[in-house]
Amino acid sequence: MEKLLYTFKHESVPFYFDVDFLELEKIYHNESIIYLTDENVYKLYESKFQNRKVITLPAGEQFKQQTTVDNVILKLIEMEAGRDTILVGAGGGVITDMAGYIASVYMRGIRCCLVPSTILSMVDACIGGKNGVDVGNYKNMVGTIRQPELVIYDYSLLSTLPELEWISGFAEVIKHACIRDASMFDDLESKDLKDLQASIKDTAKLVQKNVGIKYGVVSSDPFEKGERRLLNFGHTIGHAIENIYNLPHGHAVSIGMAAAAKISCRLSGFPPAQLERLLQLMRKYQLPCDQTFDVQRIWQTLLRDKKRTGSEMKFILLNNIGEGVVQSIPLSELESILKELF
Amino acid sequence: MEKLLYTFKHESVPFYFDVDFLELEKIYHNESIIYLTDENVYKLYESKFQNRKVITLPAGEQFKQQTTVDNVILKLIEMEAGRDTILVGAGGGVITDMAGYIASVYMRGIRCCLVPSTILSMVDACIGGKNGVDVGNYKNMVGTIRQPELVIYDYSLLSTLPELEWISGFAEVIKHACIRDASMFDDLESKDLKDLQASIKDTAKLVQKNVGIKYGVVSSDPFEKGERRLLNFGHTIGHAIENIYNLPHGHAVSIGMAAAAKISCRLSGFPPAQLERLLQLMRKYQLPCDQTFDVQRIWQTLLRDKKRTGSEMKFILLNNIGEGVVQSIPLSELESILKELF
Repeated sequence: MEKLLYTFKHESVPFYFDVDFLELEKIYHNESIIYLTDENVYKLYESKFQNRKVITLPAGEQFKQQTTVDNVILKLIEMEAGRDTILVGAGGGVITDMAGYIASVYMRGIRCCLVPSTILSMVDACIGGKNGVDVGNYKNMVGTIRQPELVIYDYSLLSTLPELEWISGFAEVIKHACIRDASMFDDLESKDLKDLQASIKDTAKLVQKNVGIKYGVVSSDPFEKGERRLLNFGHTIGHAIENIYNLPHGHAVSIGMAAAAKISCRLSGFPPAQLERLLQLMRKYQLPCDQTFDVQRIWQTLLRDKKRTGSEMKFILLNNIGEGVVQSIPLSELESILKELF
Repeated sequence: MEKLLYTFKHESVPFYFDVDFLELEKIYHNESIIYLTDENVYKLYESKFQNRKVITLPAGEQFKQQTTVDNVILKLIEMEAGRDTILVGAGGGVITDMAGYIASVYMRGIRCCLVPSTILSMVDACIGGKNGVDVGNYKNMVGTIRQPELVIYDYSLLSTLPELEWISGFAEVIKHACIRDASMFDDLESKDLKDLQASIKDTAKLVQKNVGIKYGVVSSDPFEKGERRLLNFGHTIGHAIENIYNLPHGHAVSIGMAAAAKISCRLSGFPPAQLERLLQLMRKYQLPCDQTFDVQRIWQTLLRDKKRTGSEMKFILLNNIGEGVVQSIPLSELESILKELF
């Protein structure tokens, strides 16, 4: 087991790598712990949750809504959870996002630990304190930015991760390569999903590298005033289509990245040969990138995107592979480019 | 108009005293502002809200619930409120608490200004960043601690304040005197409500003094680890009975203060003669203090109080008038004292 101390602006968050998640009960010896997980994770790891206080939610993005939060809060009250209780979110991004949000508002804030069980939550959702729920089809419309007490990486959880979740998770890995790390992009080109699934060691190395990349971006800008926006590459169009088309997050982000890369060719001189490399890499990792979408249908959702300011959208483009850039695009221009390209 | 800069731990909050609240539109010139208010305030000041974006809520503590928050969030989305929008809560404590909460979670946090319209919200609710909603009968069970952008004291709003609201507000003024300021207690004894209602100047002076007292306590302990707990004097029993008996906040707090003062005589040597002075002062300001309550009925609510830690309750007692003290009381002891005294 390894422990790294990552310092955010106002606080330090320990990340524990390669450790059984129940070790957290040694860290919080004799304290009141309540686990929040979903039915899938609960069934797979039932023996671990035995004799513990657990709130189990139905699995899926469609339950990442305020009504689920309301139910969890009623359960916490029923279980007499107090200000001294620690809420542990164990699961994918939906669970860790909701655990972070609930812990930040229950009794005006209780402690929260995160145990990511998917590639996506390991490389993305658990880092940086963003949490929240969707409002209807609007992604993460409500939430807070608040760092967890600690994050535990228990790689044994990946042994039961469904194929679709492996694929979806690699969208965020490819995103990190695109905006920040050209050499990781090369590295991904030299491997494929089967190689990584066969070697937990290589996967662990890759996960930890991605935590470092995301931490580097977030720590310099915890409240997303500037550089943190880069992490939204692929997420403007991605978020708009995710719930409308009921796609896994990574799949929606891939379609969004392909679209943003095509727009980059037009607006920021992203070389067409690099666009082709990116599309090839996404196909190699079985991520969708050739789909079109109904611009008319997603436009209303785009208008409510958190990245819109007045009549402009903060949009993330690529100058090169490994070099993302934030650009304000007038809504009218964005709309006409989208209509033309898709 | 006067401006004081109050510094909280991580941020500074300007408090503007004695100014028309629409002046904030000069401070935020050309920015997107949405007002949140209740039907009572809206009707009384309709001309001020004309041609402005306003969300109007039904008035009353019974609407301080998550469903109201959900509706406001849907309205904000409908109005295309973005991260650059400023939410202005104009009203009593219910409105300013909800505005603070909504602004802290909508799009993971937008700017919030507060315009208190009642004595209670002027001397208490608007200071210190605590916000939130009730969950059923559990008071402020969900919320955050987050400072507003600024607070505006427009004393002209007091001209339409109903008698019951004047009375209710003075409970928090008396509370501040009890825990921190014996000379203000003397001062309150020498006046009465009629005197203050007849002189906006005297009321303004008293309000500003109370802002200073509360700020002094909060700034030393923004996240309520120690001294800030003093502000909960009267609020443990007060919160438990408020929603069960459907009482105005100040009236419930008064009953809670009378009870806590009686318990203080037993546990912290609060002199019976001072208890008598306190009860006299509450009666003078028409606040209830002689009521008993059903201990059996409120005990279950008390158990869910945020001030409970394991098998103890952080309870606020008085050593003397002007000198509050935090004491951990075992739940079993608290239960038996309550059953004996009430």
